[in-house]
Amino acid sequence: MVRVGIIGATGYAGQQLVWYLNMHKNAEIKFMVSNSYVGQEFSEIYRNFKKFLDDKLIGVEDVESKLDEIDVLFMALPHGKSAPFVKLAMDKGIKAIDLGADFRLDSEETFKEWYKDDYKHPEFIKDAVYGLPELKRREEIKNCKIIANPGCYPTASILALAPLLENDLIEKDSIVIDAKSGVSGAGRSAKIASLYTECNESIKAYGVTTHRHTAEIEQELSKIGEENIALTFTPHLVPMNRGILSVTYSKLKKDISEKEIYDLYNKFYENEYFVRVINDLPETRFVRGTNLCDIAVRVDKRTNRVIAISAIDNLIKGAAGQAIQNMNIMFGLEENDGLDILAMNP
Amino acid sequence: MVRVGIIGATGYAGQQLVWYLNMHKNAEIKFMVSNSYVGQEFSEIYRNFKKFLDDKLIGVEDVESKLDEIDVLFMALPHGKSAPFVKLAMDKGIKAIDLGADFRLDSEETFKEWYKDDYKHPEFIKDAVYGLPELKRREEIKNCKIIANPGCYPTASILALAPLLENDLIEKDSIVIDAKSGVSGAGRSAKIASLYTECNESIKAYGVTTHRHTAEIEQELSKIGEENIALTFTPHLVPMNRGILSVTYSKLKKDISEKEIYDLYNKFYENEYFVRVINDLPETRFVRGTNLCDIAVRVDKRTNRVIAISAIDNLIKGAAGQAIQNMNIMFGLEENDGLDILAMNP
Amino acid sequence: MVRVGIIGATGYAGQQLVWYLNMHKNAEIKFMVSNSYVGQEFSEIYRNFKKFLDDKLIGVEDVESKLDEIDVLFMALPHGKSAPFVKLAMDKGIKAIDLGADFRLDSEETFKEWYKDDYKHPEFIKDAVYGLPELKRREEIKNCKIIANPGCYPTASILALAPLLENDLIEKDSIVIDAKSGVSGAGRSAKIASLYTECNESIKAYGVTTHRHTAEIEQELSKIGEENIALTFTPHLVPMNRGILSVTYSKLKKDISEKEIYDLYNKFYENEYFVRVINDLPETRFVRGTNLCDIAVRVDKRTNRVIAISAIDNLIKGAAGQAIQNMNIMFGLEENDGLDILAMNP
Amino acid sequence: MVRVGIIGATGYAGQQLVWYLNMHKNAEIKFMVSNSYVGQEFSEIYRNFKKFLDDKLIGVEDVESKLDEIDVLFMALPHGKSAPFVKLAMDKGIKAIDLGADFRLDSEETFKEWYKDDYKHPEFIKDAVYGLPELKRREEIKNCKIIANPGCYPTASILALAPLLENDLIEKDSIVIDAKSGVSGAGRSAKIASLYTECNESIKAYGVTTHRHTAEIEQELSKIGEENIALTFTPHLVPMNRGILSVTYSKLKKDISEKEIYDLYNKFYENEYFVRVINDLPETRFVRGTNLCDIAVRVDKRTNRVIAISAIDNLIKGAAGQAIQNMNIMFGLEENDGLDILAMNP
Repeated sequence: MVRVGIIGATGYAGQQLVWYLNMHKNAEIKFMVSNSYVGQEFSEIYRNFKKFLDDKLIGVEDVESKLDEIDVLFMALPHGKSAPFVKLAMDKGIKAIDLGADFRLDSEETFKEWYKDDYKHPEFIKDAVYGLPELKRREEIKNCKIIANPGCYPTASILALAPLLENDLIEKDSIVIDAKSGVSGAGRSAKIASLYTECNESIKAYGVTTHRHTAEIEQELSKIGEENIALTFTPHLVPMNRGILSVTYSKLKKDISEKEIYDLYNKFYENEYFVRVINDLPETRFVRGTNLCDIAVRVDKRTNRVIAISAIDNLIKGAAGQAIQNMNIMFGLEENDGLDILAMNP
Repeated sequence: MVRVGIIGATGYAGQQLVWYLNMHKNAEIKFMVSNSYVGQEFSEIYRNFKKFLDDKLIGVEDVESKLDEIDVLFMALPHGKSAPFVKLAMDKGIKAIDLGADFRLDSEETFKEWYKDDYKHPEFIKDAVYGLPELKRREEIKNCKIIANPGCYPTASILALAPLLENDLIEKDSIVIDAKSGVSGAGRSAKIASLYTECNESIKAYGVTTHRHTAEIEQELSKIGEENIALTFTPHLVPMNRGILSVTYSKLKKDISEKEIYDLYNKFYENEYFVRVINDLPETRFVRGTNLCDIAVRVDKRTNRVIAISAIDNLIKGAAGQAIQNMNIMFGLEENDGLDILAMNP
Repeated sequence: MVRVGIIGATGYAGQQLVWYLNMHKNAEIKFMVSNSYVGQEFSEIYRNFKKFLDDKLIGVEDVESKLDEIDVLFMALPHGKSAPFVKLAMDKGIKAIDLGADFRLDSEETFKEWYKDDYKHPEFIKDAVYGLPELKRREEIKNCKIIANPGCYPTASILALAPLLENDLIEKDSIVIDAKSGVSGAGRSAKIASLYTECNESIKAYGVTTHRHTAEIEQELSKIGEENIALTFTPHLVPMNRGILSVTYSKLKKDISEKEIYDLYNKFYENEYFVRVINDLPETRFVRGTNLCDIAVRVDKRTNRVIAISAIDNLIKGAAGQAIQNMNIMFGLEENDGLDILAMNP
Repeated sequence: MVRVGIIGATGYAGQQLVWYLNMHKNAEIKFMVSNSYVGQEFSEIYRNFKKFLDDKLIGVEDVESKLDEIDVLFMALPHGKSAPFVKLAMDKGIKAIDLGADFRLDSEETFKEWYKDDYKHPEFIKDAVYGLPELKRREEIKNCKIIANPGCYPTASILALAPLLENDLIEKDSIVIDAKSGVSGAGRSAKIASLYTECNESIKAYGVTTHRHTAEIEQELSKIGEENIALTFTPHLVPMNRGILSVTYSKLKKDISEKEIYDLYNKFYENEYFVRVINDLPETRFVRGTNLCDIAVRVDKRTNRVIAISAIDNLIKGAAGQAIQNMNIMFGLEENDGLDILAMNP
């Protein structure tokens, strides 16, 4: 039984961690930490849990004294907030899984460029692994101390593009990613821009050319492509609760058929439980509530472009689910333990 | 291991049966029947199941020959369509669970009045039990041959009102039920009225004074109240996929406090796994995707009315989930086997 | 040309006033006042107005000096905030139209009971008219100094019930109103409960037995029914931007057919431009964006109840549109001037 | 007074024509034609019009005899269906405005390639003008017999890209268009894929590499760019009623600042009533219900791309509104006659 603590349990990603860990046969939640709701029952905030998880939320000041009770510490916090807790965990020899951005970028310079902030604990960067298991990093994940859990857009986008780069099929400077997210991606803070009446019945792009996830996507794709990649990434806000659809465009280096590309995708992901390479175009509803990623590809012969499209649930494969997948790997559990659920439609 | 067959597997209630039974540790789906999609893989219709449930759908003509493989037959069909399959099941000595209306009403006269149709197999009415376990009918359910699985609105409405009638607290002719449903209640047929563009951004009442579920609600409440009850029931269509909120209004017979009424509700439902008597007002999102029913009550002292409010997921506690709950009881399993899941928010 | 000033121009009701007055051939907006956005262009907040209405918002402290420029002052503010501005307007001999609750209730005692607050300027109560023109109050509206513009739920509910009470058809203690509103009714303030992710895909009742609009509905229906009426009113939050559907239930005093009731409704509203008595059940989408109110009735013979149902746009007939309708009457314009628009579907 | 007839009045684009023409001071609807609802009142289908436009729909067989009553014939029909009516109109010397695709493509070969169909009346192609007035074609529009009214995606996409091509700023083979549409774009036919429950809470791409609007976009951009342009166009379905957001990506030919590009856009559209070049990123809600197109640009210096983004209402600037704009030009009216309305929010 893996014993876990969760910091930031009442944010959308945090509560999704609670949801899955509460169902997990081989994990046990020992404490949940909140900034805004200390002393309240978790089920007062998320009333779906009423009668089934009525534990009280504790404050950040109580974390240190509780670390002896756990094997791994999850953090679902805004960037810059996780690092101090990671320090505490490292001091105690406890594993840390950070759903935020504090340990995702290898280069502090890049972090500064995009986040306009310094690393809080640069000494731990070398101990952190970018936890996208489908990039064949299971050994590193298993043996590391800190998981930098990938961002939602990067998870979807990297999984869509990895086989193309792995097989050197595309022009490295031709990549455009046009991604669309449900509103839960904006978090649970009380902002006018996130009101029902401001989001409903409208779509918009945001953070055009400036979204921080760009750095993360470029870093990981550059590793796969073995070349520095700069790309254009545009996120959008879509009037739905959950889901990310990432549509990627790249110029093909050579003449290759859709069928051949599918073969390469199928091979790349052949043993991956959570990736489905499908013929139909992905729709976010078919992965909603799950840790799955659906991927399809199309070749535009007229323009010699390949369009690779992926769909995930931003709070699950894009956050909490992937974090638990990483935990499962770290602790030698089955990778789909506690994550073995399908989307519910409609 | 309970072996099951499902007729009408590609309707919204039917596929929800598949979803839950596919997760059920003690049940096994032996065949799925469809009218519209014979020969296709189930996961072509519901692509959320891709890779995990790719079995082919069979046609109705193949049902009879498959009955030996199963212990119980589920039917999720329009009214009038189940009875012939129930006949087949009875002939084979197999249990039947009908999610439709064919066996819900004790009186053929009442059925004719509301459904403008004859009973197809009146001889089985006596063998059918109205399967609402929380009405303390577990023994009957356990021993019966046929479950008439309650309608969605009736489930929500009866659970909201039962404790009031059981305790003789309300004027029997004063009951008004104003219920609201998500669009999945309208089924998966291609109708203009069910288009996204016709349902979105609007609310309407429908079937005012004429909705067939009225008969079912009156029948069951009359049994509890030990008196013939006629009531006003108004359903509404709400722009959301799932959920029913049933708001009931009744005149109190005597002076009684909200606290006392809560005590009676808590007592009535004290051992019920799937009913949560809560202080906050129910919201459908907190039971979405689950077999739970949330109930709250308020007393309007100024008008001497009690307002009892319930929320369910129309496709689960209002259809597939309750059907499986009944199956669990029939076959001596734990009542929450395979149904032990909480709502996912947002 | 009627010259107007608007206080609270950036709230949802306020900006709707701006929208309609901007289109009004015989009205001119002289200034717009905001608390939160002083000095910004109106079209920075509501970007739909860009290029067409880029005037700057002024602060409350500048109102007094601007009163000479206008004929009528609109206020769209939280309760308790309008009264001081009405005082300013009265001192200048300017007409005032208050979209808030400060002058709606005749009795200060009732106001205290529901709003837990004192009247700020009780001396003006006698000068205020409850501005629901369809209650045949055009003469009073024309001649008064202050319009207490009705609430959204009261507008819909009173219009649905007025003909029944006018014709003494129903038991006065039998009235139940179950009303449903879009989320814009909750205003534009940054609250977690109003986030997209908290409202979408769910319905809930709120303020059960305690909603302040109850007082207003009872006051006006009591005048029509010539008897003190206490009723049960339940509002709901529906996942859509706009619209109110008010479904009312009353016991009939005598045997009367649906046809006869329709005749009485048609007579009651025969000269009303903004009321449509219709046979089909109302849907909010058919009045969205308009000052119209659709009404239908059904008789439930089995229970001897009449169900009268109305639909309005909460921000228009329930707020800004009705305010302009009142202005038109006050200043001798055509009642539909500037309001002559139909719902756009889908 | 321009007298008009409308064929296909009960489709979503057709009824939007009716909505605007019904408000138009200088136009008069003489007849409305429907295939599915002959003999019914228009307001039975679109109940928002009840009491205000209760005229009966006539059948296609009655069109010919009615042509003498009108000056211009609007057709909002599936492709291939308009040409025969255009023939009738030409024979009578009446102007025709086709909201469908029958006359949009100059080359029959291209039409065949994308529509898999022959031209029905190729003899009229030379008489048709692609009616996008903002491309400086007002003289041609004014003098032509047939308007081929642009498609919704092409309108948004061409307006976003035209200034870039006009000023020769981008690599012609680098254009990617990622466009997103509300569900009304799928029309009002009863299809399972358009059900509320199948579209809500999900986003998908469709018609990847094969959408017919590609041909139209390429044709018009090639004219502006004076070079044959092939591009990649991907449409998406978004859970909202209306709106198109078109996000375009192109490689810049030279080093140019965002400011300089804005200057060129402002110059290109400086006299255009319906185009707003804005600094903030477009959101479809700010043009919903209007004939406006909002455009913003961003330069991604890191990748040397320009991202031009436009938002329109697919049924208005993308269909009915633009058709009326064309009518206004043809008949010497003010271009914004009857179209002078702003988006209503929320």
